[in-house]
Amino acid sequence: MEQKGISSAVIKRLPRYHRYLDELMEAGVERISSNELSRRMHVTASQIRQDLNNFGGFGQQGYGYNVEYLYKEISKILGLDQIQNMIIIGGGNIGQALAKFSNFQKRGFVTIGIFDNDPNIIGKKINDVPVMDIRELENFVGQHDVRIAVLTVPKSAAPQIADRVAACGIRAIWNFAHIDLHISDQVVIENVHLSDSLMQLSYRLSTLSDADS
Amino acid sequence: MEQKGISSAVIKRLPRYHRYLDELMEAGVERISSNELSRRMHVTASQIRQDLNNFGGFGQQGYGYNVEYLYKEISKILGLDQIQNMIIIGGGNIGQALAKFSNFQKRGFVTIGIFDNDPNIIGKKINDVPVMDIRELENFVGQHDVRIAVLTVPKSAAPQIADRVAACGIRAIWNFAHIDLHISDQVVIENVHLSDSLMQLSYRLSTLSDADS
Repeated sequence: MEQKGISSAVIKRLPRYHRYLDELMEAGVERISSNELSRRMHVTASQIRQDLNNFGGFGQQGYGYNVEYLYKEISKILGLDQIQNMIIIGGGNIGQALAKFSNFQKRGFVTIGIFDNDPNIIGKKINDVPVMDIRELENFVGQHDVRIAVLTVPKSAAPQIADRVAACGIRAIWNFAHIDLHISDQVVIENVHLSDSLMQLSYRLSTLSDADS
Repeated sequence: MEQKGISSAVIKRLPRYHRYLDELMEAGVERISSNELSRRMHVTASQIRQDLNNFGGFGQQGYGYNVEYLYKEISKILGLDQIQNMIIIGGGNIGQALAKFSNFQKRGFVTIGIFDNDPNIIGKKINDVPVMDIRELENFVGQHDVRIAVLTVPKSAAPQIADRVAACGIRAIWNFAHIDLHISDQVVIENVHLSDSLMQLSYRLSTLSDADS
């Protein structure tokens, strides 16, 4: 399947399609027109057709989309048709919350280890996942098929930990540390900067308040 | 200050400027040229000048930017020069982690209440913040100056809770529920869809692997 050169805007919308199709399946809907999907998702029908054409279409003229088929195809495109092992580095509040989050497991993302340098939590289990000494990182990754590393460490530790993760051969980092990481073209990084998101909300709230006064 | 019509791309970059300037201040840097800031932030110098010109500039030809002044001005633009009370609705894993996150407090976002419907946690405290019965929501908001509601409830409950929040007069929702919320132009909503972010990472990892094979 030709997937090169897909724009990042399309990539951002794919999980949204996945989510809406999931809801349609839960609601027992078997097929849907691009117009109806458009109405629900607040994007234009032509945008939907254009997005999905990047991956070969999936629709039939006059019939619309088969919801389950489209859901499965988008799942495959997103790599959700397989188990992907994750490790979480940083067993603090956010790391623990992510370890307990069942939504990820449902989509094939399975946390198999948590790493920290705090002797008070090393040796414990969080949601049945062992917390190990960060010194064991290289050893553990060498013995397990780890696809994704989740970084929930303080920003001061993040660059060095990211380098160690990449040196182990892990090629995907989900970064929650409040810092932008740059490694190489061979490692993909997705940042979740919670504070940035909250500040954007604050900015938009302030402009709303200005408009009233 | 003229702030109307600022594009969402600029708004997304503002917290990033704030973050980099914070780091520069921590490192004791007093002034910085747009070229040097550009190098660090991986955006062009002309982009930086253009972004900041939306708010009146702040730079002096041949001198660059005064780091502390620019930091304070951007803080003001983002509404971080004031205390903004938040409530968290949903005292589960993510809600608890957010309640414990000290970074927000540092920027003026103070959590003053947590709401849930689970009798096992109602009456407890998380990081000194009381967990109250969701039935107390309207009463509590009526008696306190609450600026932002953080939604960490299951997606099935989110639309109804969001409506209640808006009906109380809260005009900013930070939504962690795995659903897109639509209320009105008078309520700003910022979504943090963690699963979407993880799926994007998974997609980008899969294209990386395809390129190798």
